Amino acid sequence: MTQPLKIAIAGLGTVGAGLVRLLRQQSDVIKARCGRSLEVTAVTARDRARDRGIDLTGAEWFDSPVAMAGEADADVVVELIGGEDGIAKEICEAAIAAGRDVVTANKALLAHHGTALARAAEEAGVGLGYEAAVAGGIPIVKALRDGLAGNRIGRIYGILNGTCNYILTTMRETGREFAEALDEAQALGYAEADPSFDVDGVDAAHKLAILTGLAMGCEVDFGGVHIEGIRHVSAEDIAFADELGYRIKLLGIARRTADGIEQRVHPCMVRLETPIAHVEGVYNAVVAEGDFVGTCVFEGRGAGAGPTASAVVADLVDIARGIRVPAFMVPASELAPSRTAPMDQHHGAFYVRLMVVDQPGVIADVSAVLRDEQVSMESMLQRGRAPGEPVPVVITTHETREASMARALSKIGSLDSVVEPPRMNRNESLER
Amino acid sequence: MTQPLKIAIAGLGTVGAGLVRLLRQQSDVIKARCGRSLEVTAVTARDRARDRGIDLTGAEWFDSPVAMAGEADADVVVELIGGEDGIAKEICEAAIAAGRDVVTANKALLAHHGTALARAAEEAGVGLGYEAAVAGGIPIVKALRDGLAGNRIGRIYGILNGTCNYILTTMRETGREFAEALDEAQALGYAEADPSFDVDGVDAAHKLAILTGLAMGCEVDFGGVHIEGIRHVSAEDIAFADELGYRIKLLGIARRTADGIEQRVHPCMVRLETPIAHVEGVYNAVVAEGDFVGTCVFEGRGAGAGPTASAVVADLVDIARGIRVPAFMVPASELAPSRTAPMDQHHGAFYVRLMVVDQPGVIADVSAVLRDEQVSMESMLQRGRAPGEPVPVVITTHETREASMARALSKIGSLDSVVEPPRMNRNESLER
Repeated sequence: MTQPLKIAIAGLGTVGAGLVRLLRQQSDVIKARCGRSLEVTAVTARDRARDRGIDLTGAEWFDSPVAMAGEADADVVVELIGGEDGIAKEICEAAIAAGRDVVTANKALLAHHGTALARAAEEAGVGLGYEAAVAGGIPIVKALRDGLAGNRIGRIYGILNGTCNYILTTMRETGREFAEALDEAQALGYAEADPSFDVDGVDAAHKLAILTGLAMGCEVDFGGVHIEGIRHVSAEDIAFADELGYRIKLLGIARRTADGIEQRVHPCMVRLETPIAHVEGVYNAVVAEGDFVGTCVFEGRGAGAGPTASAVVADLVDIARGIRVPAFMVPASELAPSRTAPMDQHHGAFYVRLMVVDQPGVIADVSAVLRDEQVSMESMLQRGRAPGEPVPVVITTHETREASMARALSKIGSLDSVVEPPRMNRNESLER
Repeated sequence: MTQPLKIAIAGLGTVGAGLVRLLRQQSDVIKARCGRSLEVTAVTARDRARDRGIDLTGAEWFDSPVAMAGEADADVVVELIGGEDGIAKEICEAAIAAGRDVVTANKALLAHHGTALARAAEEAGVGLGYEAAVAGGIPIVKALRDGLAGNRIGRIYGILNGTCNYILTTMRETGREFAEALDEAQALGYAEADPSFDVDGVDAAHKLAILTGLAMGCEVDFGGVHIEGIRHVSAEDIAFADELGYRIKLLGIARRTADGIEQRVHPCMVRLETPIAHVEGVYNAVVAEGDFVGTCVFEGRGAGAGPTASAVVADLVDIARGIRVPAFMVPASELAPSRTAPMDQHHGAFYVRLMVVDQPGVIADVSAVLRDEQVSMESMLQRGRAPGEPVPVVITTHETREASMARALSKIGSLDSVVEPPRMNRNESLER
């Protein structure tokens, strides 16, 4: 295999330009490591005239990405345009139909069409690489597919969205509220002008759905992900968490249960003793729990030109070395149909913050509701004394059913002495 | 490739038995993930009669491991006997000579003969897998070889010995001294009866030498590793480190410098803000700094039957899938000759603890020595007041040459008012 691997790149934004830069700058080491060189033979992007500061010598320009995917002189097509449908999907399908390997950084596409694309790729005898679609530079796809291939993964979870983690870190460090921390993240370019995709948990859910398929050997099921974002997390909750020995992180969690596979994205209390509690700022982390390996933690930059290009190149190196493993580790035809465990059957511990009028009997009322719903309290903390005024009361519970907790919160919220809707965070029990 | 992969195992101790157990218990998932099954066709161990609680049905027993390596009906030979020379080396050489792939968990062997074995394997057209030789269950070899293959690694470091990390963690948590913490580690089975291999840093140095070869693309050079263990770390130093916002960890560090590659194993102050500071107990961690990916952290169990078997199986899965990458990522013939940067040229920051007689003029004398050697102080901390009695003085320095620091310490140690040999720890500057 001394022929160069010929690469067509669709999309020359931050990541695409970073990829071209990496391939030029590291061409010597990559050639030594693959036994052949990696050459960019075709490119396409929206604006041909734009100066991207990259050397595109030797690359044929295409105006149509779909035409490039099918017709370029290339062994592999890299899709860096994004979006769950439309042009990105067409590019991948055209490349597969033309017998080219596909590498993509597109989590939305994979989350929605991962199983179908994997099946199409296998039928065409080509590879489908998506290391860059999950957790940026962290080589978690390969870690699961190769390094941990001897394990059944019982739970996999992680900090999968750097924007949210940056905001939560800033809120904790500065005591600011969500809106202010979001402003700062936007000013620094860590959050988009319309941040909903990130802060509402959708991006993390895309990545979680992909990880679940790969780690659990089931069809990718984005629709099965329970999604909550971080808009409702308050500075006060973060301060209480700190006091109790926790951090609040937006986690994506997939877990095998007797009822099926739980997939959830939500703010989560994690104990300071766990490695993931210390993953701060824009960093991502993934924790895989294997039955033989135990707990493995992977941490790194979740976004950015360099880390994402690094992940794309990892897939290209695989292809250059002639390595082909099914996209989700087992052939798409052998993936189990996804069986989602209903969220109201979720069993976990909770943190609840109430704003109550500081008067006799309130705690008795709240305790009675919890008892009636068979929710067992672990601790209760009342802050300050202000007779007749609202004060915060924080309750942590032992493990209980989500449905019981929901009923209890509804009843508590309707008590006269409870003056704001109760705030709830889940408290995930994580092994070190 | 629907033929089973036939496996011969040399050594049925904790890891060997764990490997057999894993292969039996996970045979269905492994078959789905490889497209073929993994079968143990031959075994050898010291004592045939011993009941190991494992099912060896279908495996031919060999009394001679070397005979097994050459003659068994096997595609791959797994060496789990250990030792840098002798029988382990003979097994690997016999297997390679017979055209079989080799998988080993033997860090001493690889550290001493890694380049030669890689060369022999490549000449014979067989693979050499050693995921289990470094950091137990953490799939760091594959991460470097595949996941980060687009990067030049400027520095790689890690907590590579669980025994030392357990002892240092226990010392910090309980305030005990080294000897006592070692006793406890021995009682719990985390340290050997003769602990010198672990606590003197040799085991970590073996692993570091392997990682350096792989990450830096040079010949494995165990002789080039500067090695210090943890015997001299005192409870007092750990307490001071804590106060200054650090943990003390035994790190293995490889770094490219203008003078060549630094390879060092020594106790190290690491800031609490870094992920590695929170890796506690028997856990291992490896941090790789790539020029595109940035900082990537990998954490997991560094030893034990399950994690080690998981790593061995990762190599077996590679072989079953037909994946063959040179052992050190580039062909052995292309590995650069190792060029070791001399330790006295090391440039870094230091922590120094002195026991001085509490009398006027002492600090002036110490400061004058540091000034004369052009060592710039960052902070100085004197604990307690006891006129005429010994008190600890802690100094941290800015970055300086190792040689300057060594001269300064020698002069300081000979001052009349300094009543014990100065204690020194290096203070590695780690990015988050």
